[in-house]
Amino acid sequence: MELVTEDDIRAAATRLRGEIVRTPLTAGPAQGPPFLLKPESLQPTGAFKLRGATNAIALLDPARRASGVITHSSGNHGQALAHAAARFGVPCTVVVPEGAPKVKVDRMRARGARVIMVPPDRRVEVAEETSRAERLALIPPFDDPTVIAGQGTVGLEILEQSPEVATIVVPVGGGGLASGVATAALTVQPHRVRVIGVEPELAADAAESLERGRRVAWDPERTHRTMADGVRVCLSDLTFEHLRHRLDGIVTVTEDEIARAIAHLALGARVVAEPAGALAAAAILAGRVPTVPGRPEATVAVVSGGNIDPALFTRILAEHG
Amino acid sequence: MELVTEDDIRAAATRLRGEIVRTPLTAGPAQGPPFLLKPESLQPTGAFKLRGATNAIALLDPARRASGVITHSSGNHGQALAHAAARFGVPCTVVVPEGAPKVKVDRMRARGARVIMVPPDRRVEVAEETSRAERLALIPPFDDPTVIAGQGTVGLEILEQSPEVATIVVPVGGGGLASGVATAALTVQPHRVRVIGVEPELAADAAESLERGRRVAWDPERTHRTMADGVRVCLSDLTFEHLRHRLDGIVTVTEDEIARAIAHLALGARVVAEPAGALAAAAILAGRVPTVPGRPEATVAVVSGGNIDPALFTRILAEHG
Repeated sequence: MELVTEDDIRAAATRLRGEIVRTPLTAGPAQGPPFLLKPESLQPTGAFKLRGATNAIALLDPARRASGVITHSSGNHGQALAHAAARFGVPCTVVVPEGAPKVKVDRMRARGARVIMVPPDRRVEVAEETSRAERLALIPPFDDPTVIAGQGTVGLEILEQSPEVATIVVPVGGGGLASGVATAALTVQPHRVRVIGVEPELAADAAESLERGRRVAWDPERTHRTMADGVRVCLSDLTFEHLRHRLDGIVTVTEDEIARAIAHLALGARVVAEPAGALAAAAILAGRVPTVPGRPEATVAVVSGGNIDPALFTRILAEHG
Repeated sequence: MELVTEDDIRAAATRLRGEIVRTPLTAGPAQGPPFLLKPESLQPTGAFKLRGATNAIALLDPARRASGVITHSSGNHGQALAHAAARFGVPCTVVVPEGAPKVKVDRMRARGARVIMVPPDRRVEVAEETSRAERLALIPPFDDPTVIAGQGTVGLEILEQSPEVATIVVPVGGGGLASGVATAALTVQPHRVRVIGVEPELAADAAESLERGRRVAWDPERTHRTMADGVRVCLSDLTFEHLRHRLDGIVTVTEDEIARAIAHLALGARVVAEPAGALAAAAILAGRVPTVPGRPEATVAVVSGGNIDPALFTRILAEHG
């Protein structure tokens, strides 16, 4: 299996110029250990996913692109693809599992996407069928080298913005972001920038897969117990191979640690994070990833997205604020 | 009276490189008219004030600087000066009016500042007395050309980041930010970038001053009715002169409009704003400042700060989220 290269990510960075926000590195919550944040919540669609979606659409053959794109997504990738498709002036269809956050589905529609609701276990199948029937280019949320290369630009930017970085901490869902960032980290030589993944305890399929040395899928009913809806999916063969060879470690956090991190990010760092977006900060705040005293720039947590349900956000602030 | 020049701001920008975050322009709330945000809430101290404080300290004679700095501030400028002083390794004293937000005072102390609590009407006097008695350099929150020049770098960055900008909207409290940004706008020729100020209806001393053509001070008891604690102060002669000659207009917003803007910024744009920080967005969302359909880059609202009281933030999200 061919893995994404550093050059793929550099090329993606050139392609994305002017299409995405170059998010700054900002200070972590005042009360915790010293680290920096990369707030991808500030992308126009509220998550890093816009990077991969834009790179993938940009790389399509123009004739193929013109007939439209399709994907399956519970939220952030769907919004991102809808936004990127609109920028390219091509139609977009998103196959959405029933039960996906309403705020995310509404925004796909607001960006002009056609939304097809299906039972969660049928989303990939329906996307593939519709892709064939309507000749739409299928752009999956993470199981695609062009998508992974786009997400990797998060890592490239961090390395440029903080040459002193020693550890980058990223959430792991399907593994697209972690695969891309771990690949970007290879551009630094001879010393090694470590990339650490974070999963909810309740959806720790990647941690189990890496420990066993083979890909293990968790049942959707099991992963749906976590509030981090953005990372309920499991790795693909492609992302598993990237993580197996390139990730330096993976840790898990509890639901309570995720909630506390959301409150600390909002009130202590002025960053709105959705549950999946708070995973990396949660791991650092819970002491699962070591930081360097007096050197915040040595540790960067990627806040992958900020599309949180308003009622959940309010409840967490009331409980932990 | 000598006003700050464009060159003063350009020089400040060079001085601030590496000391402050170059905040990006990000998308405004999804549901409103199209405009961009400049989220200064992402500065290490949570507000633009770090720019002016850092520029002012950098410009002090090194011998004078070494003996320490002092200011009077209810919050954001005090935190900023404490942070900047720590960067320069010099002691910092902040004279704080009783009743200032606890979260802001705690953070001044956390950054190593000595805090002196006084009744609100004595803060300037005590700061001046202590400055003389202890030979500390007094760096006021806005009534100072070096502070205004630092704040103006917000405007300079906006002009660089969005060459298409036609209108910049800024909150007005003491007028340092508005004076600086309106001065930065002069660098654009021959067309004019308009700078519009925003005040709470309940603390509209600058609007009244500009209308009357002379500086009018509102009683602190009157301005303290607004929840926007960051803009309860009145203009100085220096900032009034800047605004009189350089500001293109000033509008006011109600407390309810401020609260709604805070909720929209958090949930629709993933930006945490304190009440004063939400003023510019509130004016646009309330239709007080015209935007250009289909051209978000034509209008930029500065989110001046994000240090909001947790209980207030939670209450606003519960009511308007």
